Amino acid sequence: MDIKLKSQIARIKAFVFDVDGVFTDARLIVTDDGVDRIFNVRDGYAVVMAIKAAYKMAVISGGKQENIRTRLGGLGIDEIHLAVSTDDKPKVFKELLEKWALKEDEILFIGDDIPDLLLMKNFNVLSACPADAEPEVLDVVNYISPINGGMGAVRDVIKLVMKQQGKWMKFF
Amino acid sequence: MDIKLKSQIARIKAFVFDVDGVFTDARLIVTDDGVDRIFNVRDGYAVVMAIKAAYKMAVISGGKQENIRTRLGGLGIDEIHLAVSTDDKPKVFKELLEKWALKEDEILFIGDDIPDLLLMKNFNVLSACPADAEPEVLDVVNYISPINGGMGAVRDVIKLVMKQQGKWMKFF
Amino acid sequence: MDIKLKSQIARIKAFVFDVDGVFTDARLIVTDDGVDRIFNVRDGYAVVMAIKAAYKMAVISGGKQENIRTRLGGLGIDEIHLAVSTDDKPKVFKELLEKWALKEDEILFIGDDIPDLLLMKNFNVLSACPADAEPEVLDVVNYISPINGGMGAVRDVIKLVMKQQGKWMKFF
Amino acid sequence: MDIKLKSQIARIKAFVFDVDGVFTDARLIVTDDGVDRIFNVRDGYAVVMAIKAAYKMAVISGGKQENIRTRLGGLGIDEIHLAVSTDDKPKVFKELLEKWALKEDEILFIGDDIPDLLLMKNFNVLSACPADAEPEVLDVVNYISPINGGMGAVRDVIKLVMKQQGKWMKFF
Repeated sequence: MDIKLKSQIARIKAFVFDVDGVFTDARLIVTDDGVDRIFNVRDGYAVVMAIKAAYKMAVISGGKQENIRTRLGGLGIDEIHLAVSTDDKPKVFKELLEKWALKEDEILFIGDDIPDLLLMKNFNVLSACPADAEPEVLDVVNYISPINGGMGAVRDVIKLVMKQQGKWMKFF
Repeated sequence: MDIKLKSQIARIKAFVFDVDGVFTDARLIVTDDGVDRIFNVRDGYAVVMAIKAAYKMAVISGGKQENIRTRLGGLGIDEIHLAVSTDDKPKVFKELLEKWALKEDEILFIGDDIPDLLLMKNFNVLSACPADAEPEVLDVVNYISPINGGMGAVRDVIKLVMKQQGKWMKFF
Repeated sequence: MDIKLKSQIARIKAFVFDVDGVFTDARLIVTDDGVDRIFNVRDGYAVVMAIKAAYKMAVISGGKQENIRTRLGGLGIDEIHLAVSTDDKPKVFKELLEKWALKEDEILFIGDDIPDLLLMKNFNVLSACPADAEPEVLDVVNYISPINGGMGAVRDVIKLVMKQQGKWMKFF
Repeated sequence: MDIKLKSQIARIKAFVFDVDGVFTDARLIVTDDGVDRIFNVRDGYAVVMAIKAAYKMAVISGGKQENIRTRLGGLGIDEIHLAVSTDDKPKVFKELLEKWALKEDEILFIGDDIPDLLLMKNFNVLSACPADAEPEVLDVVNYISPINGGMGAVRDVIKLVMKQQGKWMKFF
């Protein structure tokens, strides 16, 4: 791993996630009643471990459905911001920074598509994406996970940080 | 890209879509109550961008379920024609042309299976299909997306047109 | 194609299908209310074409759920035999032969797993299976589709017969 | 197969399963009402065959949803332990051993993720995992199935034991 990335990872105290294409493979099951999402249990385990290790976690998504809150809130993420328009994402992100009293470079942000560029380009975060992110995102992130969205990319990114900071498997 | 395709793309002002196998991977989740479909969020983003850029969009499908209208109407496509029999597809297509006051070669039509040949062969549209379309369709289309149905083929085709016309990422 | 298979295909007048692993990829979505199945629209198109061309069609499955009847009955298959125990499959099959007044070698039977061997080994049918059938089945069938269950194996087998008998694309 | 594994397999009289990532591909369908799981019919057939052949079977899972009981209980597994916290897994496992009056090395345990290490490392079981288990598990198990979770890994492990003990296809 290159030295700059290593020092960036060392500073991380919080994770901010986009949902679709990150916690999922970007697909939505659309029923006549609503929209279902497919989450990955192994991503969930990593989120639970990170919360035990006192990392802060937030979700900022354009998605509207309660299943995001049910699943990701159920894992222990208390900052779940849904139905956030692309234009409002920077505002929500700034409020998180203030609430958490963290600096931009203490945040790892994971996204997969063009709307996520607003956070990746305008803030000094450590940016990451799944292997199958859109080309516009692959072009700019600091770290590309070797794993696709919904198939463990979230776990890979969390484990990367926790391992380097000596916290992976510590709370097991 | 070959010159003929390039000039065909330059004229496109509207997209007409088949649904199953194009917006989806051709699979249907059949419950005891109905039928669910799996759409792709990234296709959805491209549809929204294209509508912002004033392209006209329509769906002509044999599918009957409201989830098509919920999802694709929800993205902003206002011409959603469901439960259209194979034989009626040309009629519905002609009505669209009149309503939109567009010429055949200003339409990009995306389909994946034999019933779609009726539109591809009888109208002077620019025809496209996903990488995993049926061989009878692969044989005749003007453009084969490198991406499978439901995995981003729709986005690929929309982006192809918008990029060449200088409109991709312009409304971001 | 070898000559024996060619002459076997020439005699086929009916298709008998197992469901799970043939029309599906062998997976079941289990909810707290029931069981859903994932069917393929392109398989469905081939079934509809075969019925238009007057082939007889039946389903013999151990599955109990109405979604099988909803989907496959909805495509026009009128012989849908559900919740058939492995031991009863030969009896149900014999009754079909009598009802249809067909000989064993006029039937193409498609299955994917060990219980299907009862029909494949005890009747002089033309037997077929998807590419990902279990090894015990791959060992004995007359024709192995290059396509997996649920991904178009049914269409492949129907098209194989209809093409050779000059009926594919004839009713389109 | 190496001789030690062969002699370990010869002693197996019972199977204990984790669920997510073993009977499934680790993904959960999250709806606004609950959580669905995707099971594999072919795994189910192997479970039914093993129960016919008098193997004991149990499930120990952190999962809470009744769909696990519906599906795996429906196949005939009567020891279904749900909502078991990671810390409680050893206790539940010990109670099973006593109830069954079996020794640790008569049990084959299949898991895929870090919490399963508690059973794999602290008991003298024969441990197995799917091909796509987490690296921490791949590192310690006695047998790695060549097949992924949810795609037939359970059947592979059951068949391995039953074949070597001369019981596979015996009750068919």
